[in-house]
Amino acid sequence: MADKLTHFNDQDRARMVDVTAKKVTARFARATGQIHMHPTTLQQITAGHIKKGDVLAVAQVSGIMAAKRTAELIPMCHLIPLTGVDIHFHDNGHDTITADAVVKTKHVTGVEIEALLAIQTTLLTIYDMCKAIDRGMVIDDVHLVEKDGGKSGHFIFAQPDN
Amino acid sequence: MADKLTHFNDQDRARMVDVTAKKVTARFARATGQIHMHPTTLQQITAGHIKKGDVLAVAQVSGIMAAKRTAELIPMCHLIPLTGVDIHFHDNGHDTITADAVVKTKHVTGVEIEALLAIQTTLLTIYDMCKAIDRGMVIDDVHLVEKDGGKSGHFIFAQPDN
Amino acid sequence: MADKLTHFNDQDRARMVDVTAKKVTARFARATGQIHMHPTTLQQITAGHIKKGDVLAVAQVSGIMAAKRTAELIPMCHLIPLTGVDIHFHDNGHDTITADAVVKTKHVTGVEIEALLAIQTTLLTIYDMCKAIDRGMVIDDVHLVEKDGGKSGHFIFAQPDN
Amino acid sequence: MADKLTHFNDQDRARMVDVTAKKVTARFARATGQIHMHPTTLQQITAGHIKKGDVLAVAQVSGIMAAKRTAELIPMCHLIPLTGVDIHFHDNGHDTITADAVVKTKHVTGVEIEALLAIQTTLLTIYDMCKAIDRGMVIDDVHLVEKDGGKSGHFIFAQPDN
Amino acid sequence: MADKLTHFNDQDRARMVDVTAKKVTARFARATGQIHMHPTTLQQITAGHIKKGDVLAVAQVSGIMAAKRTAELIPMCHLIPLTGVDIHFHDNGHDTITADAVVKTKHVTGVEIEALLAIQTTLLTIYDMCKAIDRGMVIDDVHLVEKDGGKSGHFIFAQPDN
Amino acid sequence: MADKLTHFNDQDRARMVDVTAKKVTARFARATGQIHMHPTTLQQITAGHIKKGDVLAVAQVSGIMAAKRTAELIPMCHLIPLTGVDIHFHDNGHDTITADAVVKTKHVTGVEIEALLAIQTTLLTIYDMCKAIDRGMVIDDVHLVEKDGGKSGHFIFAQPDN
Repeated sequence: MADKLTHFNDQDRARMVDVTAKKVTARFARATGQIHMHPTTLQQITAGHIKKGDVLAVAQVSGIMAAKRTAELIPMCHLIPLTGVDIHFHDNGHDTITADAVVKTKHVTGVEIEALLAIQTTLLTIYDMCKAIDRGMVIDDVHLVEKDGGKSGHFIFAQPDN
Repeated sequence: MADKLTHFNDQDRARMVDVTAKKVTARFARATGQIHMHPTTLQQITAGHIKKGDVLAVAQVSGIMAAKRTAELIPMCHLIPLTGVDIHFHDNGHDTITADAVVKTKHVTGVEIEALLAIQTTLLTIYDMCKAIDRGMVIDDVHLVEKDGGKSGHFIFAQPDN
Repeated sequence: MADKLTHFNDQDRARMVDVTAKKVTARFARATGQIHMHPTTLQQITAGHIKKGDVLAVAQVSGIMAAKRTAELIPMCHLIPLTGVDIHFHDNGHDTITADAVVKTKHVTGVEIEALLAIQTTLLTIYDMCKAIDRGMVIDDVHLVEKDGGKSGHFIFAQPDN
Repeated sequence: MADKLTHFNDQDRARMVDVTAKKVTARFARATGQIHMHPTTLQQITAGHIKKGDVLAVAQVSGIMAAKRTAELIPMCHLIPLTGVDIHFHDNGHDTITADAVVKTKHVTGVEIEALLAIQTTLLTIYDMCKAIDRGMVIDDVHLVEKDGGKSGHFIFAQPDN
Repeated sequence: MADKLTHFNDQDRARMVDVTAKKVTARFARATGQIHMHPTTLQQITAGHIKKGDVLAVAQVSGIMAAKRTAELIPMCHLIPLTGVDIHFHDNGHDTITADAVVKTKHVTGVEIEALLAIQTTLLTIYDMCKAIDRGMVIDDVHLVEKDGGKSGHFIFAQPDN
Repeated sequence: MADKLTHFNDQDRARMVDVTAKKVTARFARATGQIHMHPTTLQQITAGHIKKGDVLAVAQVSGIMAAKRTAELIPMCHLIPLTGVDIHFHDNGHDTITADAVVKTKHVTGVEIEALLAIQTTLLTIYDMCKAIDRGMVIDDVHLVEKDGGKSGHFIFAQPDN
């Protein structure tokens, strides 16, 4: 493990890390997260799948749009022109929806934060659209799954042993 | 439990719910969330507390700023002029930081989403600033704690029994 | 017809008109517009209605989100907290989709521009999502249909005789 | 004509198309559009040309600024660093102003949407600045005129025969 | 002089001050600032006044638009729906342009920062548009001139004696 | 000195200058500026340095974030993906804080405006956070210090003789 937070300058203040000399390479990141809800809430959402009123369609649009604006929200993130964003949903048939996001770029820094923000925004939009019927939903287990490209190489998430 | 997702119109498409006739009242919402990390990562962050380089200071600024932009990110959210945002941090001395946000307004709709977005952004900024040393951090247990004001009244989160 | 463009100051430069003294009232505006396309393009979009892949769902989310950001894009527009946005679609079964937007607020100025921007953005998103198969689409006949509330009162669009 | 909307993934949900492997090339797009108004309105605007109070100057600034923010508004658009935006106006001396926008980039995708959004915003700003004297203005005939660069090559708009 | 910075919470971290209980009143703020330049630069700008190519028209649009976005840029600022923004220019005929901005609202907090940001952005846009001929321009003497409304009452700037 | 403002087209209207053919090179810009205040105000800020409540930490985050959004605020600026931003502070021990910003990119145009906007926003955030105790602060002497890279080459600010 590295021993230094690189986001600080010689006055011990935050800076945007200098990546001027880094190489442009193809990069991707995959992130995931879940939202737990009352079983009735999930039924209403999945019923919506069949009709046109589609909570997940709105949620997914919000996630894609948020990924593009990561640098506006996360102070030390570099602006990265993304080359692809794709979000998938799975549910456990009972009380949980899982969202997975893959984000790609060809740039000097990685897109981990973009993928994580896509997941967070997607899940929060689900919360927003269902809060009238269920304010107790919980967003959980949001983490990076995998990333590749760049000097730090390939990363695969290892579930911590609790 | 209500039986209807109010965010859909007669074409079964998403709409921004009409709140024109709702009353202006003082409202607040409190949300919470956690980020789990390697113990060494927490040590580096808390060491930063003592020096000026302060991960949590940056994270908290990002959370406050994000709360103000909720309506830009969450598609069906109404723009709400917030009257106060305050974020606190606690850590368990080992591997977890908890953030709590209180958001206030005097408006026709509530600020639950604003409080949740403040938490999500705060935690993601912690991830961003520490990812060079720990990409395996997990954001967890993000939920509304309490809200008050408005027609739907007082809500207190009841931890689901798993 | 009034004889003065109110958006200019005594140096003949643009200003944001002073509405400090205007009364808060409920206001709404309805706008409409069309996009013409190749008949095959419309077939592909309406086929999407039946499946989940739904061009219009994305278009409509974009229109609602754009309405909220009108003051950022249109230089002399006042920021208006909207209380409702609803967009409907109709197609002529051949080569044209019509979008209608209703925008509401309770504020000191009207929401005509918000409704028009919702329509423009909705139609442009349809263009964007179908441009790979049809770059010749034309956006047409975008205008205010009706507005009410405020000092200038009720307006209903009178189709000009060409 | 292609037979597939590329903006959907294997869950039939919208995605931002993956352009990671596309080549960086110089690209441009030219779009046009019109706003029809009462002849008196056009007189007031063109009188402004002579004095400093200049509706078209404000409109054109808004169009250039909007072009840069296309990816924020149109959900599946890639962020593209533009290398040039130029807008021209023509009027028919009676009741119509035409705006033309040329947008350029050196990037992996085209700038058609950017050019169309520049036109839409420019025309809507004209509407906004003149609405106090003419709410019946109509925005019309907004379309791509020409684009070049990239795999899909040169496109020139062919006026449909109605 | 007060002895406490109100923007900090009990963890000594920044917060957005709670203004929920403050009264809505009409408020205004006037700010000013200058940009010094090479005399030739001023000649080119003022020559532009006479022709249509007008640096100051663009600068002033940018200042009005920036005032509306103050809460996005200044972390602890409350979002305030502005009811008016007006910017004037004066030059000394030699090497300096002065900009004055008046910003108004009817809200629970004041608009000092909005007026100052309008001035800063206006002056920086002048710099941007002229930097090809003069990179040595200096922005100077940006301060609040006067504000009124709200509990803290009337303020008039007193030029410090240096 | 050049004799032409390049930001105007053949209709004498503002345009975003065409940089499609310019070369990608590493570029940096350094800008500076000051804020003058009552000596008591500086004491309160520097006392904050020692405790965690840190005006300058918030100010600096705001400056970094603003630099990334320059193209949204300054109408004719090109969007530039920045590769680094770093801000330092110095105070004279009496009544003045100086901020210095270094901004870097590898792109077809320079980052002078980004560096200047970082400084302006940083200083305005200091004003905002201290205005409750000192509304008479003055922002002064904001200028480019040095820039390099690109066709126009190396620039070093020469203090004008007043």
